This record gives sequence, C-alpha cells and structure tokens, in this order.
Amino acid sequence: MNGRALAVTMRTPGDDVELVHGFLLTEGVIGGREDVLEARYCDSRDADGRHTFNVLDVLLAPGVPDPHADVERRFYTTSSCGVCGKASLDAVRTIARFTPGDDPVRLSTAELVELPQRLRAAQRVFDTTGGLHAAALFTADGELLAAREDVGRHNAVDKVLGRALIEGRYPARGTVLMVSGRASFELVQKAVMAGVPVLAAVSAPSSLAVDLALTSGMTLVGFLRGESMNVYAGAERVLDAAAAAAVNGGGPDLP
Amino acid sequence: MNGRALAVTMRTPGDDVELVHGFLLTEGVIGGREDVLEARYCDSRDADGRHTFNVLDVLLAPGVPDPHADVERRFYTTSSCGVCGKASLDAVRTIARFTPGDDPVRLSTAELVELPQRLRAAQRVFDTTGGLHAAALFTADGELLAAREDVGRHNAVDKVLGRALIEGRYPARGTVLMVSGRASFELVQKAVMAGVPVLAAVSAPSSLAVDLALTSGMTLVGFLRGESMNVYAGAERVLDAAAAAAVNGGGPDLP
Repeated sequence: MNGRALAVTMRTPGDDVELVHGFLLTEGVIGGREDVLEARYCDSRDADGRHTFNVLDVLLAPGVPDPHADVERRFYTTSSCGVCGKASLDAVRTIARFTPGDDPVRLSTAELVELPQRLRAAQRVFDTTGGLHAAALFTADGELLAAREDVGRHNAVDKVLGRALIEGRYPARGTVLMVSGRASFELVQKAVMAGVPVLAAVSAPSSLAVDLALTSGMTLVGFLRGESMNVYAGAERVLDAAAAAAVNGGGPDLP
Repeated sequence: MNGRALAVTMRTPGDDVELVHGFLLTEGVIGGREDVLEARYCDSRDADGRHTFNVLDVLLAPGVPDPHADVERRFYTTSSCGVCGKASLDAVRTIARFTPGDDPVRLSTAELVELPQRLRAAQRVFDTTGGLHAAALFTADGELLAAREDVGRHNAVDKVLGRALIEGRYPARGTVLMVSGRASFELVQKAVMAGVPVLAAVSAPSSLAVDLALTSGMTLVGFLRGESMNVYAGAERVLDAAAAAAVNGGGPDLP
C-alpha cells in the first residue's frame, strides 16, 4: 500500500485484486472504487526466481488518508480482537460510512432456504478438496451476483464484496450475503461496511455478531439449513411467502 | 506480559490461564511450565466499573527472553500469515525446541474412529449453541486427558495444550490431538510445538499443514468421520487393529 507493507493474509490464490478491494473497503481504508488508483501484482520472487503472485501493490488515489498512520488502531480494534465487545462495536460505528439500517429490501423464507444449495453448487474447489469456505452475494430475488471460495472465510467474503465494489455495486443495497460457516463479528462488520443489508449463515452466529447486526439495522440469519433458520436481527425483512408475494406484486412501499 | 501488551484474542471466557500457557508454549515464547512465574487476571474494568476478567498479566521467569523484542517476527511469520509457505515452515523449524518425529506411539484405525464421538460427547456448550469449536487430547489408548471448547479453534487447542503443560505433560509424547474442524497450518504448528505426535481432524487439512506435518515427522489424519479417514503424513503410526494388538500386547519395541 503506497509502497509499504500494510497487511498479510493466508489466502487461496486467485481473485486477488478483488480480495484487496474487499479487504480495504470492509476495513474502512477506502470508501469507493475510485479511492484505489492502481492494484497490481508486484515483482515478488521466491528463492528460485519464480514470480510468487503473492504480493499486491496498491496505490491509493490522492487525498485518500494513508492507513499506515493508524493501522494499529484500525486493524487491532476491528479485526477479531477487541479487548471488549463494546470497543469493537464502537470501532465499527466510527469507521462505517453508512449502515444498511434503512435498506427496504424484503425476503421470503422460501427464497432464503434456497440459498445454501445455490452457494454449495458454486463451490467448485470444495468438490475436490472439501477444505474451502465459500461466500456468495445474491439479489433479493435469489440471483447469484458472485460466489468465491477461499481457505479463509473472511477472504471469501472480501473477494465477493470486492467484486461487488469493482462492479459498481457499493453500497450493496438489496443484497444477501450467504456464507458457508458461522456468522462471526468480523463477517457482520464486513457486510455492514459494504452496505449489505442481510447476512445469512449456514451455522451459528456469535453473540457479538448479533449485537453488531442489531446496532447496524442489519438482518442476520443463522442455522439456515434444510427448511429452517433462526433470525437473530432485523426479522422485519424476512417475510413468509404470502406476504412477500404481496410486496413484490406491487403492494404498498415499506417504510 | 511483563507489564506490556503482547497479544489480544477473541475467545470464549474460561480456562484463561490454560489458554495463555498454551498460547505462549505453541508460539515459542516459553519452553516449559517453569518459564511462567505468574499468570493472573489483572484488575481491568469496563466503563461501569465491573471486573472484565478479560486481561491476564503474565510474568516470565528470570532469564526467559522477553518476546516483545521480536514479537513482529514471531507472530507475523508463524501465525497464519507467511508471505510464502516456505517462510512459515522455516519459522516453525527455527522456534521449535524439538519435533515429535521420534515418538514411537502407534494407533489402530479402530481407536482413531472412536475419537470424534468422544470429542463430541465432551462439547457441552456446543449442545446449547452449536457455535463452538472443540479440541481434545487423548492417550494412544483413547483415554481423554482434556477437552476444551472455544469460539476460536486455535484457542480451543491452546487451552488443551496449556492444560497438558500445567499438568507436566510436556512434551506431550504418546498423545493424539483431535480437533472439530479443519487441520490448518497453525494447528499443526501448535501440535508440533507441544510435542504432540498425532493430529486428527474431522475435516480437511491445508496443503501447508501437510507439508509441516511431513517436515516435522508428525502423523496427520483428516476427514476422520464414521469409519473412514485420510492419513496425510506419518502413516507408519496408524496400524490396523490386528497389528496394533500385537504391538500393545508386548511385541518388539518400535524404533
């Protein structure tokens, strides 16, 4: 970043430019696609002189604050390691440029229960390894916008949200982020930072993740498996099929 | 640590003294129980004056090198984020005080397939939340030495290995570490650092985890589910039931 080391992550190679965009967005370093002037592989080589494709050079646009100035505060307080939960919640509130609280999107339970199998169908590397996490961004109608796999679930989410940013979908209004594992605090943070109003996870959320979803006006769905789900926050966005049909069929605008 | 901040982790409260012992051992800060002079909660309080029980003060014994001197190298290179895999492998080789390569323990497949359900039976919080990882240390005969749950699987392993250290079981010769999720590079690292000769995981290993297990002479078992498993490294320690009975029944000493 601007010529100095900013962050290192263990990731599955591929979609690295998306990864870096998503990471910078969801950690609050950039506030839009235009904040990145250039992102490309630098000429890093291993002991045998082979190009590693493991280092990305990012140049921020003029006027974008250099994150090195407060990198410790920024990554320390928001990435999985607040000394207390309240400090972590406050940090997200401080760096978030907006929250998805006013997003009027509504989803039916019938649509939601379809998402895990659509995510699973997009997991090509999992088919051969059984070892990668996955994330996907859907429209409220269940259309797949992007799906990515990575050994780290945070990276999978960053790649999906970076893709959305590059495509001009920021804030990602009206979307659902579906993840293959648990709904951690950090994943809710990333969704909030990208303006995603609904996060759905196959497995459990943490209590701090629920707190952040409630604070941010986000809808958080966990244990989305088979025909069932738990809605931990923002339940007003989850409609049963009949109500959803009424809304989508031209019912009154929702507040 | 010696009055200065060393590390912050998002963890499930409880067994915190074990957690700190296991963390310091598996990150190479200490080389034995006697290297910790004192580990206790400090008087940290939240905004309302309540004791948080979220901060531990650790005092190292005289003569133990202060890790702050090279904290960046230490945690940067070994914890989940080597710029390249080789650097990560080299870092572990540098800080490991010994490797479990010469541990003569042998296990039968019949014993191994019992471990996941024994681990599952010890997961009390998972029963109510479905949201925690777990790790357990067993003897080669399948006796449970310790089982711990945590929102982070690395913490669950640190708690189990810290418990073993406090009980004087270091190096943890002749044991099997069983984990509920994947076998990451970091979990293999932690097992190596604690002298555990066998790591078994319910899910997949990463390629770097396999590399480290091979380099360290450790046995690595993945996808241990139902009646099947994959053995990725150190397969000579995994015997079929008949061969195991011959060994355990007083057969010749193994080299």
